[in-house]
Amino acid sequence: MKRIAVFTSGGDAPGMNAAIRAVVRGGLHHGVEIFGIIRGYNGMIKGDIIPLNSQSVSNIIQRGGTILKSARSKEFMTPEGRKKGYDQLKSHGIEGLVAIGGNGTFTGAEIFFNEFQIPTVGAPGTIDNDLFGTDYTIGYDTAVNTALDAIDKIRDTADSHDRIFFIEVMGRDSGYIAVQSGISGGAESILIPEERQTIEDVVGTLKAGFEKKKSSSIVVVAEGDEEGHAAIIAERIKSTIDVPVDIRVTNLGHIQRGGRPSAYDRILASRLGLGALEGLLAGHKNEMAGIVNDKLVYTPFHDTITKKKEINSDLLRLSGILSK
Amino acid sequence: MKRIAVFTSGGDAPGMNAAIRAVVRGGLHHGVEIFGIIRGYNGMIKGDIIPLNSQSVSNIIQRGGTILKSARSKEFMTPEGRKKGYDQLKSHGIEGLVAIGGNGTFTGAEIFFNEFQIPTVGAPGTIDNDLFGTDYTIGYDTAVNTALDAIDKIRDTADSHDRIFFIEVMGRDSGYIAVQSGISGGAESILIPEERQTIEDVVGTLKAGFEKKKSSSIVVVAEGDEEGHAAIIAERIKSTIDVPVDIRVTNLGHIQRGGRPSAYDRILASRLGLGALEGLLAGHKNEMAGIVNDKLVYTPFHDTITKKKEINSDLLRLSGILSK
Amino acid sequence: MKRIAVFTSGGDAPGMNAAIRAVVRGGLHHGVEIFGIIRGYNGMIKGDIIPLNSQSVSNIIQRGGTILKSARSKEFMTPEGRKKGYDQLKSHGIEGLVAIGGNGTFTGAEIFFNEFQIPTVGAPGTIDNDLFGTDYTIGYDTAVNTALDAIDKIRDTADSHDRIFFIEVMGRDSGYIAVQSGISGGAESILIPEERQTIEDVVGTLKAGFEKKKSSSIVVVAEGDEEGHAAIIAERIKSTIDVPVDIRVTNLGHIQRGGRPSAYDRILASRLGLGALEGLLAGHKNEMAGIVNDKLVYTPFHDTITKKKEINSDLLRLSGILSK
Amino acid sequence: MKRIAVFTSGGDAPGMNAAIRAVVRGGLHHGVEIFGIIRGYNGMIKGDIIPLNSQSVSNIIQRGGTILKSARSKEFMTPEGRKKGYDQLKSHGIEGLVAIGGNGTFTGAEIFFNEFQIPTVGAPGTIDNDLFGTDYTIGYDTAVNTALDAIDKIRDTADSHDRIFFIEVMGRDSGYIAVQSGISGGAESILIPEERQTIEDVVGTLKAGFEKKKSSSIVVVAEGDEEGHAAIIAERIKSTIDVPVDIRVTNLGHIQRGGRPSAYDRILASRLGLGALEGLLAGHKNEMAGIVNDKLVYTPFHDTITKKKEINSDLLRLSGILSK
Repeated sequence: MKRIAVFTSGGDAPGMNAAIRAVVRGGLHHGVEIFGIIRGYNGMIKGDIIPLNSQSVSNIIQRGGTILKSARSKEFMTPEGRKKGYDQLKSHGIEGLVAIGGNGTFTGAEIFFNEFQIPTVGAPGTIDNDLFGTDYTIGYDTAVNTALDAIDKIRDTADSHDRIFFIEVMGRDSGYIAVQSGISGGAESILIPEERQTIEDVVGTLKAGFEKKKSSSIVVVAEGDEEGHAAIIAERIKSTIDVPVDIRVTNLGHIQRGGRPSAYDRILASRLGLGALEGLLAGHKNEMAGIVNDKLVYTPFHDTITKKKEINSDLLRLSGILSK
Repeated sequence: MKRIAVFTSGGDAPGMNAAIRAVVRGGLHHGVEIFGIIRGYNGMIKGDIIPLNSQSVSNIIQRGGTILKSARSKEFMTPEGRKKGYDQLKSHGIEGLVAIGGNGTFTGAEIFFNEFQIPTVGAPGTIDNDLFGTDYTIGYDTAVNTALDAIDKIRDTADSHDRIFFIEVMGRDSGYIAVQSGISGGAESILIPEERQTIEDVVGTLKAGFEKKKSSSIVVVAEGDEEGHAAIIAERIKSTIDVPVDIRVTNLGHIQRGGRPSAYDRILASRLGLGALEGLLAGHKNEMAGIVNDKLVYTPFHDTITKKKEINSDLLRLSGILSK
Repeated sequence: MKRIAVFTSGGDAPGMNAAIRAVVRGGLHHGVEIFGIIRGYNGMIKGDIIPLNSQSVSNIIQRGGTILKSARSKEFMTPEGRKKGYDQLKSHGIEGLVAIGGNGTFTGAEIFFNEFQIPTVGAPGTIDNDLFGTDYTIGYDTAVNTALDAIDKIRDTADSHDRIFFIEVMGRDSGYIAVQSGISGGAESILIPEERQTIEDVVGTLKAGFEKKKSSSIVVVAEGDEEGHAAIIAERIKSTIDVPVDIRVTNLGHIQRGGRPSAYDRILASRLGLGALEGLLAGHKNEMAGIVNDKLVYTPFHDTITKKKEINSDLLRLSGILSK
Repeated sequence: MKRIAVFTSGGDAPGMNAAIRAVVRGGLHHGVEIFGIIRGYNGMIKGDIIPLNSQSVSNIIQRGGTILKSARSKEFMTPEGRKKGYDQLKSHGIEGLVAIGGNGTFTGAEIFFNEFQIPTVGAPGTIDNDLFGTDYTIGYDTAVNTALDAIDKIRDTADSHDRIFFIEVMGRDSGYIAVQSGISGGAESILIPEERQTIEDVVGTLKAGFEKKKSSSIVVVAEGDEEGHAAIIAERIKSTIDVPVDIRVTNLGHIQRGGRPSAYDRILASRLGLGALEGLLAGHKNEMAGIVNDKLVYTPFHDTITKKKEINSDLLRLSGILSK
């Protein structure tokens, strides 16, 4: 393989630039030309493909977002779209792909390989940490710290005003961000899709807090599958609880996606970017590079897509004990 | 005056603790005993009043929120409530008050003085910077930097995905936070109550951006007087604009209130806390300590309540030029 | 066991407070009374021992340092000192100890057990990450991010002035902080005790950079075993290199110890604090609780003291490739 | 004037990029072409001059350092060097200059004007805040907050270990950074060139602290005119004081120059960049744009160079009272 292209796809995540840099610098090391595709599959179809050298990725390791930009592509879901993409890669002499993204991205890559035999190795780039085949995904540690920073700030107000705050964090249908930001933020209660808690459970926890003279509380809510989760839950609790409480709701929203990546995310992204490139060079395809127990592993896209990563049950137990 | 009490009231603001510390250390310097009232006027009514010494305020200058807590008091709006408060102060031998808060707090203090002749000097503590009589209020600089940090993060995503983001910041009916965070965040457009812009104006700015190949934009919206401002405006623009755009809305919410105060806020709060105390000792009453052009001044509560502080028109002009 | 005491010893590390909190809340969960010893072995000798309840550890998870303070104790190195300590514990009814610290602390605990049969389980609290028996130590992730933040800032100046910066980071005789902060900071070269590099190697790397028109460079130097390491190396390189370069040296120093702990450190510390307590209750002694491959394990003090934790060789290779 | 060039010179300061951006966007607004000179006077001599458009300064407002780079130029101190610089400007059609820097920069600009009649208006860019003619310089607020952040971190360790820390901050022969970071960091003592304190004074303050059971102390030392100031002072105090104390010294060094500029610095830099440009267009020359009492003013280089800006004596008094 002499020419490989890298692209980012799906929601941006802090550390994606570090992964791109590792692919480019790794290419230099292995004598492979690296190209960048702008805006994911969309750019592939349009031929928005540029050569990347060491200078192109200089001074980007500390930046959030992705210098290659990201986009969703409806056209790539059609055979015609993929054919156009293939023609563009062909005309640029691209023989393999490194895809930084999540399961949507990997699904597209697998279909594309089956049709045109251009192999892809993926690197898990998503703040949600919901990908089977790696302990952590690129961007997750930064997102958790951003959420934590917000929780710390909100606790100042919660304490000053004796309030209960419901804080909604990202994570789609995964509770990872909620669990880690909730435990580290000292939340009294954490609501995640993986563990069904009833309104009565939450009311119970909050009431137990009152009895211990706890005057303020933080409840972290994973966005789960419904829009406006935290607001709805808070509303129901307000109408259920029979003690006078001042309940506020805040949705952390898009701040969780951006920002300077943490040390952990930069190193993880560097290892995974290089790992994806070297996997491709070693003949891997339709697989995602991941780090499990501090070791590089490759997992078939099929498994990353169909298998569910479980939240460590130690953490759920820990959360229960610490909020006493 | 031998005994003075300090309290915080209204929304908490970063730097309030630095102001409390300055009152206590200033009391030590001037040989005056300082007491703290917990939860503002509510605590005054209940007699929740504690002595404060140098150790009480050690290691608090860096903390957000207020160690004296804050609350709204309906009871203090009644003559009976104020009488109770007076009796409590009397029984503690309190002869004067330092009130850290905003216009609601000062209004109460003035009525209280007229009834019971216990003088209050105020220190402006609110993130909104909407108080006449001081260039800046305690907490404003920190809140602007918190909003800015969020805008910087969101721009990473806006750039990566070619999106337009509407970001709603705090400020009640004042546009200060919006103007400073918007200019420093490089916003393409800033919507504030002080300057009526039509939907057409905003659409015009955004379209001009497209024509210059600007692929992402940030619009900062002051919360103004309506709930959900940013969401409503974004919706109306979506239905008006005839170019395909991906518009997102995020409301920064309560993170803007908390956090470690900035250097500026800690110094401002220290000067104003000491200034309020020394004003009280010098015979001031019904006045707010403020810093105007780097000098300590006292302004009658009547003026802080009735006069409107204007946003420097240089800033509005600057914003227009820089977003080109 | 009905009464357990917790203490911190050795250099302070961010997350120690989260570990203390976990011990206290865990005690509540298991119906065990928890006491805190102030200033480590010194406080034990003096009987500076206080009961801790849920409120004592409220709102400390986000604070750097240690609320129990830390100190070195020469007296505890003598049999007389340890006898005094034992008498104090006895008189307080303390039956077991949770020691948060490093190898110096654990060595003392083991001798103490052999003399007086009061069992200790340790939790690894040190920013250096140099303890065998755990993948990470409490405080390490925060220290790396603090060092990284400093490197990011210094790179702004290095780039603006085309300079080479030698940045010395902490870690005693371990290169962990240097390796992770160096890779994540995009350092051109990383000098650690574990891997002897000659001055010629560094000069070679820097010269190769010049040839690729790299105008600025960052060299991260682990403090190693000599004081002023970075300054000495920089001086020698200045006198060796035959290209005109502007070389500056900065020693990050004590900022690396403090600050709000990261999410990772708070969770790690919470798991290890609870793990140490529950280990003690389950009959462990002379062992350190650690997390290896995301699982709680106990390692004899003897091993944590005598065995050397190796730096993952993948990281050293990564560093070489990324600086191309 | 149809073509104006902007450059940065002297030590880099956070906000310089915001000032460059304001010059460029202001040029667009006024229909003037803006060029950038790379590496200050050095680049002028070499003709390293590039056109800047709106895109060139997009997404730089949040970055530390300077995209135009900075350097000292010995050659520009010679008539021959300046002649070369003039020829280069001439050949590019440059009719005026905006110089972002300090007094060294302005001195060169004035000599250059006298020889070649190319006018310069300056913008004060230095973290030291030592320029007469403006309340604050670009980069100062950020540097103070960086120093403060470090002091907050070090206090965690000082408190945990009952230590006295001497922290040296930047500022050359000015005590501005020391005063503001010291007051906001709650320092027990602040040593600045403007106010001679004897070793006895400091020892007195520290002893008074001991007597009040203050177990830790922070002394902030301005770098002043001697290298290693803090280390020398600490050594002398160690040998003078007769109480057992654990004294540590840390020099914050170059981290104070870099990093994301604060909101204040971005706005100040934007106002001053635009102000310098508009001053030049209005016929000003040999003057520095400054903000005094929130208003744009122009001060002759002669005054900025010869006059000394005094530290507000309120702050010095405040510092004395608060450390009680």
